[in-house]
Amino acid sequence: MQDITVLRQALPYIKRFRGRTFVVKFGGEAIEDPHLLEELIDDLSLLYLVGIRVVLVHGGGKQATDLAEKLGVENEFVGGRRVTNEGTLEVMKMVLNGKLGTDILSLLRKKDIKAISLSGVAAGVINASRRPPKQVSGSDREVDFGHVGDIESVNTTPIEMLLDQGYIPVVSPMGSDEEGNVLNINADVAASRLASALKAEKLLLLTGAPGVMEDMKDRTTLISHLSEEQARGAIASGIIGGGMIPKVEESLHALRNGVGSVHVLSAVEPHQLLLEVFTESGCGTMIELK
Amino acid sequence: MQDITVLRQALPYIKRFRGRTFVVKFGGEAIEDPHLLEELIDDLSLLYLVGIRVVLVHGGGKQATDLAEKLGVENEFVGGRRVTNEGTLEVMKMVLNGKLGTDILSLLRKKDIKAISLSGVAAGVINASRRPPKQVSGSDREVDFGHVGDIESVNTTPIEMLLDQGYIPVVSPMGSDEEGNVLNINADVAASRLASALKAEKLLLLTGAPGVMEDMKDRTTLISHLSEEQARGAIASGIIGGGMIPKVEESLHALRNGVGSVHVLSAVEPHQLLLEVFTESGCGTMIELK
Amino acid sequence: MQDITVLRQALPYIKRFRGRTFVVKFGGEAIEDPHLLEELIDDLSLLYLVGIRVVLVHGGGKQATDLAEKLGVENEFVGGRRVTNEGTLEVMKMVLNGKLGTDILSLLRKKDIKAISLSGVAAGVINASRRPPKQVSGSDREVDFGHVGDIESVNTTPIEMLLDQGYIPVVSPMGSDEEGNVLNINADVAASRLASALKAEKLLLLTGAPGVMEDMKDRTTLISHLSEEQARGAIASGIIGGGMIPKVEESLHALRNGVGSVHVLSAVEPHQLLLEVFTESGCGTMIELK
Amino acid sequence: MQDITVLRQALPYIKRFRGRTFVVKFGGEAIEDPHLLEELIDDLSLLYLVGIRVVLVHGGGKQATDLAEKLGVENEFVGGRRVTNEGTLEVMKMVLNGKLGTDILSLLRKKDIKAISLSGVAAGVINASRRPPKQVSGSDREVDFGHVGDIESVNTTPIEMLLDQGYIPVVSPMGSDEEGNVLNINADVAASRLASALKAEKLLLLTGAPGVMEDMKDRTTLISHLSEEQARGAIASGIIGGGMIPKVEESLHALRNGVGSVHVLSAVEPHQLLLEVFTESGCGTMIELK
Amino acid sequence: MQDITVLRQALPYIKRFRGRTFVVKFGGEAIEDPHLLEELIDDLSLLYLVGIRVVLVHGGGKQATDLAEKLGVENEFVGGRRVTNEGTLEVMKMVLNGKLGTDILSLLRKKDIKAISLSGVAAGVINASRRPPKQVSGSDREVDFGHVGDIESVNTTPIEMLLDQGYIPVVSPMGSDEEGNVLNINADVAASRLASALKAEKLLLLTGAPGVMEDMKDRTTLISHLSEEQARGAIASGIIGGGMIPKVEESLHALRNGVGSVHVLSAVEPHQLLLEVFTESGCGTMIELK
Amino acid sequence: MQDITVLRQALPYIKRFRGRTFVVKFGGEAIEDPHLLEELIDDLSLLYLVGIRVVLVHGGGKQATDLAEKLGVENEFVGGRRVTNEGTLEVMKMVLNGKLGTDILSLLRKKDIKAISLSGVAAGVINASRRPPKQVSGSDREVDFGHVGDIESVNTTPIEMLLDQGYIPVVSPMGSDEEGNVLNINADVAASRLASALKAEKLLLLTGAPGVMEDMKDRTTLISHLSEEQARGAIASGIIGGGMIPKVEESLHALRNGVGSVHVLSAVEPHQLLLEVFTESGCGTMIELK
Repeated sequence: MQDITVLRQALPYIKRFRGRTFVVKFGGEAIEDPHLLEELIDDLSLLYLVGIRVVLVHGGGKQATDLAEKLGVENEFVGGRRVTNEGTLEVMKMVLNGKLGTDILSLLRKKDIKAISLSGVAAGVINASRRPPKQVSGSDREVDFGHVGDIESVNTTPIEMLLDQGYIPVVSPMGSDEEGNVLNINADVAASRLASALKAEKLLLLTGAPGVMEDMKDRTTLISHLSEEQARGAIASGIIGGGMIPKVEESLHALRNGVGSVHVLSAVEPHQLLLEVFTESGCGTMIELK
Repeated sequence: MQDITVLRQALPYIKRFRGRTFVVKFGGEAIEDPHLLEELIDDLSLLYLVGIRVVLVHGGGKQATDLAEKLGVENEFVGGRRVTNEGTLEVMKMVLNGKLGTDILSLLRKKDIKAISLSGVAAGVINASRRPPKQVSGSDREVDFGHVGDIESVNTTPIEMLLDQGYIPVVSPMGSDEEGNVLNINADVAASRLASALKAEKLLLLTGAPGVMEDMKDRTTLISHLSEEQARGAIASGIIGGGMIPKVEESLHALRNGVGSVHVLSAVEPHQLLLEVFTESGCGTMIELK
Repeated sequence: MQDITVLRQALPYIKRFRGRTFVVKFGGEAIEDPHLLEELIDDLSLLYLVGIRVVLVHGGGKQATDLAEKLGVENEFVGGRRVTNEGTLEVMKMVLNGKLGTDILSLLRKKDIKAISLSGVAAGVINASRRPPKQVSGSDREVDFGHVGDIESVNTTPIEMLLDQGYIPVVSPMGSDEEGNVLNINADVAASRLASALKAEKLLLLTGAPGVMEDMKDRTTLISHLSEEQARGAIASGIIGGGMIPKVEESLHALRNGVGSVHVLSAVEPHQLLLEVFTESGCGTMIELK
Repeated sequence: MQDITVLRQALPYIKRFRGRTFVVKFGGEAIEDPHLLEELIDDLSLLYLVGIRVVLVHGGGKQATDLAEKLGVENEFVGGRRVTNEGTLEVMKMVLNGKLGTDILSLLRKKDIKAISLSGVAAGVINASRRPPKQVSGSDREVDFGHVGDIESVNTTPIEMLLDQGYIPVVSPMGSDEEGNVLNINADVAASRLASALKAEKLLLLTGAPGVMEDMKDRTTLISHLSEEQARGAIASGIIGGGMIPKVEESLHALRNGVGSVHVLSAVEPHQLLLEVFTESGCGTMIELK
Repeated sequence: MQDITVLRQALPYIKRFRGRTFVVKFGGEAIEDPHLLEELIDDLSLLYLVGIRVVLVHGGGKQATDLAEKLGVENEFVGGRRVTNEGTLEVMKMVLNGKLGTDILSLLRKKDIKAISLSGVAAGVINASRRPPKQVSGSDREVDFGHVGDIESVNTTPIEMLLDQGYIPVVSPMGSDEEGNVLNINADVAASRLASALKAEKLLLLTGAPGVMEDMKDRTTLISHLSEEQARGAIASGIIGGGMIPKVEESLHALRNGVGSVHVLSAVEPHQLLLEVFTESGCGTMIELK
Repeated sequence: MQDITVLRQALPYIKRFRGRTFVVKFGGEAIEDPHLLEELIDDLSLLYLVGIRVVLVHGGGKQATDLAEKLGVENEFVGGRRVTNEGTLEVMKMVLNGKLGTDILSLLRKKDIKAISLSGVAAGVINASRRPPKQVSGSDREVDFGHVGDIESVNTTPIEMLLDQGYIPVVSPMGSDEEGNVLNINADVAASRLASALKAEKLLLLTGAPGVMEDMKDRTTLISHLSEEQARGAIASGIIGGGMIPKVEESLHALRNGVGSVHVLSAVEPHQLLLEVFTESGCGTMIELK
């Protein structure tokens, strides 16, 4: 009996969010563990079933590295960033568009939720241009990152078509240029630009960490809210560092381009999505312009 | 000048076929050679541009065998048929849904043709059940073919949605059961059942051979037309044999379930599709009920 | 944290019921207490927000009796049933269509839920004919029940229009004949016939009792499930008696005319609606054909 | 024979007005006499049947006063204006939304015209805020008019939905604030604001008098046309006085907000609506900006 | 004042007929006199404006005969029926599709009524086959009536498109066979078959006479109503004779194929259309199955 | 085999032009010779079948002059331009709207292409005003050209309706003023203004000459491309003269009003339309702003 009242507490959030678009991105952490992935799909199904238009963007870097190793494809990194050589590109197609897309659809099929996976190559969803060689810190010469793309524009028409017809689009972060050349795209960036183009209410970035933290090893230092100004300050002062910097930069880009709020949440703790969406207190780090 | 009259000769075929659905299936032969594949995509683009609703189904057995070898996955065959063990299934996801689907989309993107690739797992397009172990010729015990599916039903809704909105659906032959378990499906069967479910005007099977031939090594023995009765006779008398038997059986199944005609054409000779569709004489083998 | 999992438990019910139509009927007991009514409206809002098409039918006999007394209109009953004389009919218009409809809309407006109240007189929703005088037990002559109608047919077009556009129709149980004469309709019957005409998934009858009970004073005698056969047996044997008889008869009529299931629930205990709809065990009495 | 030519004379008016929206308001005078009301409904039906989108707004002050007296509710007036105390508000719900709305629907049902009655509380049609206490002439202190609302905005969506689907909306002049509190609204103001929000071609105000007259007792002093300037002059000079002043003020407000013309007509003389709409000379007083 | 009540009397007819289809056919008599034609167009405009879907079919035999004479084309008749030789066919195209169609559109344009003229050749509206030579009374050999067509089928799609978009289709009675050969069609037959195909409520045949009369010279012998049985009897007994026989035969054909009623009216007396449609007594001869 | 590749060469043009609108105008030269006309209709059918929205505008001056002579109607010309007297206007209605429109539809029917012919009088497509008398070279007094119209505006709604529904509109160049008076319109001007109003991709003017030529007798002097500046220069220098001047002026008017390009092509040489639309080199003279 007491349980059922939880449904009632969710009521204002359902009312506020139904018909709105959420872009949810997760990466290797969530996918690695089948149980975690299924939990996540369950949570997403609930968002979908109360009428939220859910778009899923998934990474898969870890899985790609593993496959490359098995196939003897060189995993090349410069300054911590992957170089997408010919072999890696093929690996990416196979892992992202093939294995992971299919596995996610399989789980959604089990829940009887209508979904279609597609990469950004499909129907020109992600139009990109190959990144020109450039100077990077940690290298004294221009680096050619290979088949890596910078997003030029996003064609939301097929995504909107799928959402309007009640499908969950499951998007893998690859794009193509006008010649049809396939390009590897950073998953956070793909999610952020899709969210902007769709004028999403929320962009939810699921990560290995519970959110943005002052000390990545100390959960009690979690920052639960960041304005643009605070975020810029934290980067400048070094509180935000490492891989979190581009994530926060992309978040700010999304906010300035029409996304309502960005959330950095744990992909590995249970029900973070539901807590964030359906409770007053929320969880993880919320980033807003103000 | 004389050339332009060819366009005029195509006129009655354009009139007859626009708005109709064609399911085109091709396999490893066409995909192996990038130039051949691009030629094929060009021909398909023309069908699409004159208003035919084109659905593409692609195999990729050869590519899967290659990848399995590289990854040390056992390629297991019983009586000439692949056993889809756990490792093979993963390979199939990667090759069919990942690499081949992406490469075909890349070519269509280059031609600026709207297309979306999906496997039969997406949105429950191909509902299948795992094939129970059975006695096969060439083995003295029941064989479990592993993660192989027999099609129970086809959900055409997403395919029709894509066609109605002007997309070419590029379908890879995998399906799932109600629990979401992914199953490998024979590509000819997938194409045939999709064609039936869509009440396609034509099912075009592109193969390594120029059509059904009395002597597979002698092109002059090509049979240009087969009625159901003739086909059954030719199988009984051994004129049609080997791998061509299930292809013809599936063709007859399709014809009895609403497909207008089935065509067996060469995937490796140029422009067979155009010759078949836009000329009086056609090419390859046409199979009809009567 | 533990709370949020309740949402997950509701998931299969949300999936099963969204897009389906529920007709919910309540009467004077729920309306009398403003707090109870608001609770009920909250529960209905939740059903609505997860995508159930909710139709509300409300009675108001007690309120009508009170107003009649104040106005000096004779409250005439024969054999326990109200006679709708001229004065009573005017009172009904005022109480049902006027006061109660407005008060329910007021509460739904407070929740920001789109709703429109209408009586069955509107747009010919309830076509009725005046009940001819008839012999009743407890009277030795034919009784003319006055402006009371028997439903001839239900016009669901305006109700479907409202549901399709996202409104909750709030229906008061009055109808009219072809001459436009206004007729008083039994609220249980109005709800049942609306449910049949709409092919509702569920008809939920909220009553003063927690359900059908073998002994109306002993809650432990609640019957949680009744098949048609069991119901008929219980009436024959006298287990079901009094005012519950016509309620059960109407329920069976609804079931035989396309309604999925009928539920008799308490209008005065909290959250019965949510417990019934979103939990495995449910509550109250469920009546099904088998 | 000669009669039938009248139809031909109506032709240019039918051509001009079909597809346009007319808001027709009438009050207690028309409702009091059942024969008059039926005549009026007949005229409205004709407007509807030639393709005019008719919205009806009805008052009912006199009927409310009568009911209040019967129920012992104090009819409180300050400076000629009703104070809507708690009891009066209940009376208003019952009379306007209940009795009068139902009686009008009953007549339209008799004519087989599709109609739905709703108060401004339904679906947030009339959003209002409670009028703050203010100084009025005839009182030396601030007066709290009780549950009386000033219109903040009008939500035309449900009204347009009904009109588009061929229903006549019958609107009673009540509204609600964001908390759902029900408020009494002046019927002239409700009609005028609805007309503005709907960009009505005509607002037709049916009154006890045949129009605006220099001497309310002398029919020959009827003013058949008033520009805004003339209207303001007539108010300033006292030619227009009493209850006609707010009516004319509201008319000017409507004209300045997109209504084509406002007409003040007799509710008690026959066929004034038809004469106004379908004849060259028209009748009553026409008010235009210029 | 008294006039305006005529509008009220028309109310039930407007209600009954709006949204229904009327096919109105007139011939040379109406067209000959410009004043008469304009009167007729006025009456048709009124039907259109109250929401009736009006289809006009016009003949023009007399005008064709005149032009043929001027051009030295032989006007050939056998047994009173025109032979459509090559020259006559050209004359028909010019008179019916050219002059008369344009003149009718010109009048409708003057009334600001949207209309499009088309012959039955357009968009395959009237599919016909050339009438084979046959024996006719008054000739001792088979007669080839030349380019005269018997209607095989009617394609109502373009007519429905025009009606749905608010146009009056003005149809001239010519058709074509599958080879595109143009054929002359009897105007009464064209109107009757169009009416059947459109499931018209009324087919109104305007003629030189005031209706079907026992004695064509004595107006008092007008038959105001004919059932199928009465009509057959009157033909058998010779009461109906001459050119009225095929008209009545076609009328019965129309009635048996879904037309509500057929009316034979005077084209030369004023307002016959309006009297028929909008008054209780009607005028001319009404033919019904029973 | 080699032939079929022509289809492939047409692919980029089909892709570029499908869904776009082409206005094709031809005059007496094309119509005079039945074989030529049928060839032309064949070419237009192909444009239509690959998805181009084709609008046909036809002249018929020569045919009108012939009929006028036969009927003894004076063919009056002043300074080379026809005066449209009463008799000529009747001839125009008969020849353009009657004979030629019907003959073109007959050919399209033979090809099974959906088409509807209409003059600019239909549905107010061409709104014109009668040209006032004016001074012309070759006359020393003001000339009244009679029933000749200058286009005031074009109503594209019915044309767009036909195109959207898959019909080819076949338009004859007549218009009407607001009083419905029929006016003769120059066919080049009608085509140009329709093209502008429809924002056509191409306006194709088929003429007796192969294009604009420096020496009208020497085919080798054909100018294959003209910018606005070049065209103005060529008129100034006398290279373009005679009847080609108004044609070029109208072309420039069309280009400045939204038409993509104008083409002057031979109506008498075979397949000029196809060569222009589907080949790189094109044919005739292309006129563009730059």
